Amino acid sequence: MLGNFTYCNPTKLYFGQNALDGLNEELPEYGKNVLLVYGGGSIKKNGIYDKVVAILKSNDKEIFEDAGVMPNPTVDKLNEGIARARAAKADLILAVGGGSVCDYAKAVSVSVHCHDDPWEKYFIRFEEPSCEIIPVGCVLTMVGTGSEMNGGSVITNHAQKQKIGHVFGEKVFPKFSILNPEYTFTLPKYQMVSGIYDIMSHILEQYFSGTDDNTSDYIMEGLLRSLIHSANIAVENPTNYEARSNIMWTATWALNTLVAKGKTTDWMVHMLGQAVAAHTDATHGMTLAAVSLPYYRYILPYGTAKFARYAVNVWGVDPHGKTEKQAADEGLARMETWMQKIGLVMNITELGANEAMLDGIVKSTHIMDGGYKILDATDIRAILQASL
Amino acid sequence: MLGNFTYCNPTKLYFGQNALDGLNEELPEYGKNVLLVYGGGSIKKNGIYDKVVAILKSNDKEIFEDAGVMPNPTVDKLNEGIARARAAKADLILAVGGGSVCDYAKAVSVSVHCHDDPWEKYFIRFEEPSCEIIPVGCVLTMVGTGSEMNGGSVITNHAQKQKIGHVFGEKVFPKFSILNPEYTFTLPKYQMVSGIYDIMSHILEQYFSGTDDNTSDYIMEGLLRSLIHSANIAVENPTNYEARSNIMWTATWALNTLVAKGKTTDWMVHMLGQAVAAHTDATHGMTLAAVSLPYYRYILPYGTAKFARYAVNVWGVDPHGKTEKQAADEGLARMETWMQKIGLVMNITELGANEAMLDGIVKSTHIMDGGYKILDATDIRAILQASL
Repeated sequence: MLGNFTYCNPTKLYFGQNALDGLNEELPEYGKNVLLVYGGGSIKKNGIYDKVVAILKSNDKEIFEDAGVMPNPTVDKLNEGIARARAAKADLILAVGGGSVCDYAKAVSVSVHCHDDPWEKYFIRFEEPSCEIIPVGCVLTMVGTGSEMNGGSVITNHAQKQKIGHVFGEKVFPKFSILNPEYTFTLPKYQMVSGIYDIMSHILEQYFSGTDDNTSDYIMEGLLRSLIHSANIAVENPTNYEARSNIMWTATWALNTLVAKGKTTDWMVHMLGQAVAAHTDATHGMTLAAVSLPYYRYILPYGTAKFARYAVNVWGVDPHGKTEKQAADEGLARMETWMQKIGLVMNITELGANEAMLDGIVKSTHIMDGGYKILDATDIRAILQASL
Repeated sequence: MLGNFTYCNPTKLYFGQNALDGLNEELPEYGKNVLLVYGGGSIKKNGIYDKVVAILKSNDKEIFEDAGVMPNPTVDKLNEGIARARAAKADLILAVGGGSVCDYAKAVSVSVHCHDDPWEKYFIRFEEPSCEIIPVGCVLTMVGTGSEMNGGSVITNHAQKQKIGHVFGEKVFPKFSILNPEYTFTLPKYQMVSGIYDIMSHILEQYFSGTDDNTSDYIMEGLLRSLIHSANIAVENPTNYEARSNIMWTATWALNTLVAKGKTTDWMVHMLGQAVAAHTDATHGMTLAAVSLPYYRYILPYGTAKFARYAVNVWGVDPHGKTEKQAADEGLARMETWMQKIGLVMNITELGANEAMLDGIVKSTHIMDGGYKILDATDIRAILQASL
């Protein structure tokens, strides 16, 4: 653990099959007007919507709806949500859905009482909110982003071909989040494995950075081993509660600020994946999966020792009689086999990208400086080319 | 992750070489009267007392002192502290010291505005506070207990030969804690390794329980591997900042409720160690070290699979060609060698216990039901006998 840092994560989590009961404990803390935010309506089919509405009504809340949050929430939708929250005089924003819905709820929460343009203020200038923030609560129905216990919010601007994330401070974190692993059972397999890879990428983005000795790296190796183990079970049996609950819990701790404390981080895979998504609107986790191995193989020579450690401690590679490079390569080969086995998309072509788009994607890619190599446009193009 | 649980840990941590600057951010949140709680005065020798007092004065605080908190804080001292806090009309209790000082500060904080006998209310009847709680902040100078980010408070009653811990809910957690690894540099080696084993025991008490598949176990394996690695460095070079900072961070996460979530826990080693301490007043971590291996070897047949997993994942035992029992035994043997190497006390005789005391220690030992075998008095006597 190097450097100075603060840690504070005040989000209260309710976890388990009875987690929704926590809503009855939380609602009395807030005013009457609740803006209920959700996505395409799957929560109406699986009964979660009815359960949430019943609890809101039994707590005498006035319900205002904001439906139709899309997988990559847009600036246009954000502006619509701000108007709805203002009209409702919302005292609480209750997000029911996956990371996109939670991300969107946070973006609305910091914009309702703010009179700047939210895209410019938060996603271009990366300012912290200077106005009143409406409290947010989440009922999670999809797992991966960690948005339920952090200040992250990713918004897409189609006109500018930009998908940008802002990690807000602890005042923007959800006040509470409700995590019932059973709510994730009905998710299609494509979404489930996409979420699993999003979790893995969150951990790897924080792991593959720095050369210091850091407790966080050991915690991350544990999280990765648990994730791989549970993913193998969940892919075969999506209603295995134990596996789905471990995946849900790992997702939260992969990106609630803990494992980044006292160390540097990378996030270049997210920058590449978000650029691909800005041009294809592909599912988030799949964009990360498709660019990961080309990226890691490209930077491996600059961080060989860490890749070898990853191979041994996460993938069980036996290092005896091997060079660091050989062990590291073997680790990535095992990772590749596993990614294919659980059904991840392994190239951006399958996500709708093509060679003609590459210049545009390169241009949309933000460059980070915490990884083992700071990329330039040529590097990025080479990685994307290898991802086709 | 099984069962339903809530997680909420609102303590704000300031970590690193500049952590004490955090006091300037926190103090304006509280009223004028600060009860400054500390131990035997080592903070006056190493300069921490002067630094803290200077910051309190520059924030216009009225300082009231409560010094002389002993390693195993007593009921008598607690009653003295309550009187001091009442006389001071304390708005904030600032604990500067190790776990005993933090534990004690919490016990005072829940007793000042309470008119029951605190020993009876909190340590015999295990009630939650029903009165106003005075906020507590900690400046940590010793590492191990995790008291800086939890609701734990252990108090000793010499008249009753009892050392009892109460784990309070999140309202009793310190509001903030200041963790500067350099403050631990001057600690004598005996105290340092005692703290290291306290951390290890916290993790093992939560690890050696249950047979479910749980992300927490993977996190704990990571914490243990980091702890062992950093302890080896710190024992050779106590001023290695990286190692001491990793140990400090591991201590916090070993016992801030995270790794117990969604699983059962044991705590029988603490019950045995606390009973030994109630009769000998020995250093906490050393009492745990002295009883651990006799206890683990005694229960190993009832939880062999978990002990084998521990051997492989924490101690690097190669399981090939070995029975679970053989691998498990090899793990405990490696643990024993390591404990001896870092300088832990390996028997209770060295801590002042003798055969004549055993009946009394057995009587003082609370029995827990989360381990791999629920002990009876005969089991406890056999374990203590093997610990002599």
